[in-house]
Amino acid sequence: MHILRTGRADLVIFYGNAEHLSIIFINMATEKFNGWVGKDAAAADGNLIYEEFQPKRWEETDVDIEVTHCGMCGSDMHTLSGGWHKPTYPYVVGHEIVGRVVRVGSKVSHVKVGDRVGVGAQSDACLECDLCKNGNETYCDHFVQTYDGIHKNGDRSMGGYADNARVPGSFVINLNPYSNIPSEILAPMLCGGATMFSPLKRYGAGPGKKVGIIGLGGLGHFGVMFAKALGSDEVVVISRSKSKEADALKLGADRIIATGDEPDWAKKYGSSLDLIVNTADSPNMPLTDYLGLLAPMGTLVQVGAPEGNMPGFNGFKLLSKNRNLTGTAIGSRGEIREMLQLANDRGVKTWANPFPMSKVNDAIKAFHRSEGRYRIVLVNEKNASANL
Amino acid sequence: MHILRTGRADLVIFYGNAEHLSIIFINMATEKFNGWVGKDAAAADGNLIYEEFQPKRWEETDVDIEVTHCGMCGSDMHTLSGGWHKPTYPYVVGHEIVGRVVRVGSKVSHVKVGDRVGVGAQSDACLECDLCKNGNETYCDHFVQTYDGIHKNGDRSMGGYADNARVPGSFVINLNPYSNIPSEILAPMLCGGATMFSPLKRYGAGPGKKVGIIGLGGLGHFGVMFAKALGSDEVVVISRSKSKEADALKLGADRIIATGDEPDWAKKYGSSLDLIVNTADSPNMPLTDYLGLLAPMGTLVQVGAPEGNMPGFNGFKLLSKNRNLTGTAIGSRGEIREMLQLANDRGVKTWANPFPMSKVNDAIKAFHRSEGRYRIVLVNEKNASANL
Repeated sequence: MHILRTGRADLVIFYGNAEHLSIIFINMATEKFNGWVGKDAAAADGNLIYEEFQPKRWEETDVDIEVTHCGMCGSDMHTLSGGWHKPTYPYVVGHEIVGRVVRVGSKVSHVKVGDRVGVGAQSDACLECDLCKNGNETYCDHFVQTYDGIHKNGDRSMGGYADNARVPGSFVINLNPYSNIPSEILAPMLCGGATMFSPLKRYGAGPGKKVGIIGLGGLGHFGVMFAKALGSDEVVVISRSKSKEADALKLGADRIIATGDEPDWAKKYGSSLDLIVNTADSPNMPLTDYLGLLAPMGTLVQVGAPEGNMPGFNGFKLLSKNRNLTGTAIGSRGEIREMLQLANDRGVKTWANPFPMSKVNDAIKAFHRSEGRYRIVLVNEKNASANL
Repeated sequence: MHILRTGRADLVIFYGNAEHLSIIFINMATEKFNGWVGKDAAAADGNLIYEEFQPKRWEETDVDIEVTHCGMCGSDMHTLSGGWHKPTYPYVVGHEIVGRVVRVGSKVSHVKVGDRVGVGAQSDACLECDLCKNGNETYCDHFVQTYDGIHKNGDRSMGGYADNARVPGSFVINLNPYSNIPSEILAPMLCGGATMFSPLKRYGAGPGKKVGIIGLGGLGHFGVMFAKALGSDEVVVISRSKSKEADALKLGADRIIATGDEPDWAKKYGSSLDLIVNTADSPNMPLTDYLGLLAPMGTLVQVGAPEGNMPGFNGFKLLSKNRNLTGTAIGSRGEIREMLQLANDRGVKTWANPFPMSKVNDAIKAFHRSEGRYRIVLVNEKNASANL
């Protein structure tokens, strides 16, 4: 194989031999993928358009993936609507990607064409700083989000609501070790699952610990399952109503605190939990009372990210019992692997709600009607048939 | 000596021999100490009244102390004004007490009459729970505050703006090991010093760490000195203006961030500190920007307790860098001893501003004019002469 670069960012690949010579010309500046593109804030209401988009320019550190599955994460909607920050349309969102490798950069060695791989919410980092070296690459200053970041070469990253995705190899996870787990189960774990596994692991969920999960949605359902799989003494769902109690128990929760149905919940259950992971993202959440649920020295980890400020709260809830309020973002690659192994060993399974990717706009509407229960997964029919 | 208890809570003590028999009658229900009493919210403006007050009823676990020194803590004012919660007048505040033991309960063995002792902000706890057993008695559910709590026998605790104080022996610290340190230096350490030492110690101030101290008042000045004494790489004061820069440097700080003088401080110094101890207690503090000063995984410890809520803040400051917001209250007895040893070994000295206790109302006014710089210490002239 011979690769020739021209001055105009073209890539010419010759391969084969004298009898069967193939020549591929790729115009790097104009190379296009097809996907479901968000072009303005209305996209968040279910107005994505299937069309061409420009992936990042190829580098030999990259991997091209034929997307078979992509989970639908709340972040997708926050990004499409511009709720978190000023948006940069067009977007191709989606960062719970599973698919088949179709092209591997010469500098990538851990995957090969045909492998089933996954990509989560992070697509790049410096990989040289102390954070990166210590498994904390999600907090690196050079963090690049899978579909809302800028790569080192200046190109925007694009996501997995698409036929193809191009991702720096360092952030492509080889899923071969988890061959027993279907892709629709795996995909949502890559962001949603890891987002819950990371704080549970970092703050010691396991034997001897009572763990609360605030909010039973896509994130929360993973929280319950992983808190239980880690061996926590008790797993308690904190939800507004009892309507999800049956699901909570089925997922493995020991009980539910229904804040809307038990007016004295804050007092009744005060100081009862060692660790709480909070998926709620309403700026009006009762943060003071949530903190009060923690035992002395307990930790509340915020993973839901409000579009506005976190609410004010009574500082004595922290001071008087040395309680901690912290936050984590997604999971590192090491945490993702550890989570997948735990899922494999303990049979943790996403409650996946599959939609054909061609019906993504219907899926978004179902998402807004909270019909995900508990994770919508877009299935790219074109690519998935052989790989479901 | 013979002690006789009557049915009416009287105590009768016979001592001496046949030639010199003394009999002391103490009516326990009406036993009085003298002190500077706060009788309504105006007390917080400097309207304490010297008169009798009722100490807790004597128990054999108690120690009576002739107060020689008492530091003036911000909590005294919050309590007298009723700013933190509904007040219960009369108060005798003061919980940075140093004095001489004049009476020791039969169940107390670690101090004897005549010893110089100290008492901080905590006067009781269950001493049986896991928290108490592990040196976290300050977070015990049965925490009794020195002058704003109720003892197990149902009596209110009273503080050190007085001639005498009665304190459960378990919370009386024998100061004999620190005989080189004057009482006016020691007294303010027992609450103010420990309140800063505890978070510095718990969250790893020391070699390799850059530590910020927000606010340079009574607490802040201890924070700078102890952060330095613990060997922190850098100690940075965060203050509104540069007016206290000279003091900050003299106390051992490496530099000051003057938030009022440097409009771009939040950006300029973002992610630069590993640990921040926040003594500010204004509900309007720029909490989002304070959190932004923390390096990834850094911790901000709130020790200043606002009279209102803590302000709302941008949750991404926590999530995006796994930063922690926590709070601590005062210091345990173990932490107090460790702090005193460090002060002894490294020559840490309170910048004490002594006032005669009889001028306590002037001292309160000076406190409100921020003339403490950095800790007002009330000296009980009647008791202190032999003991200064």
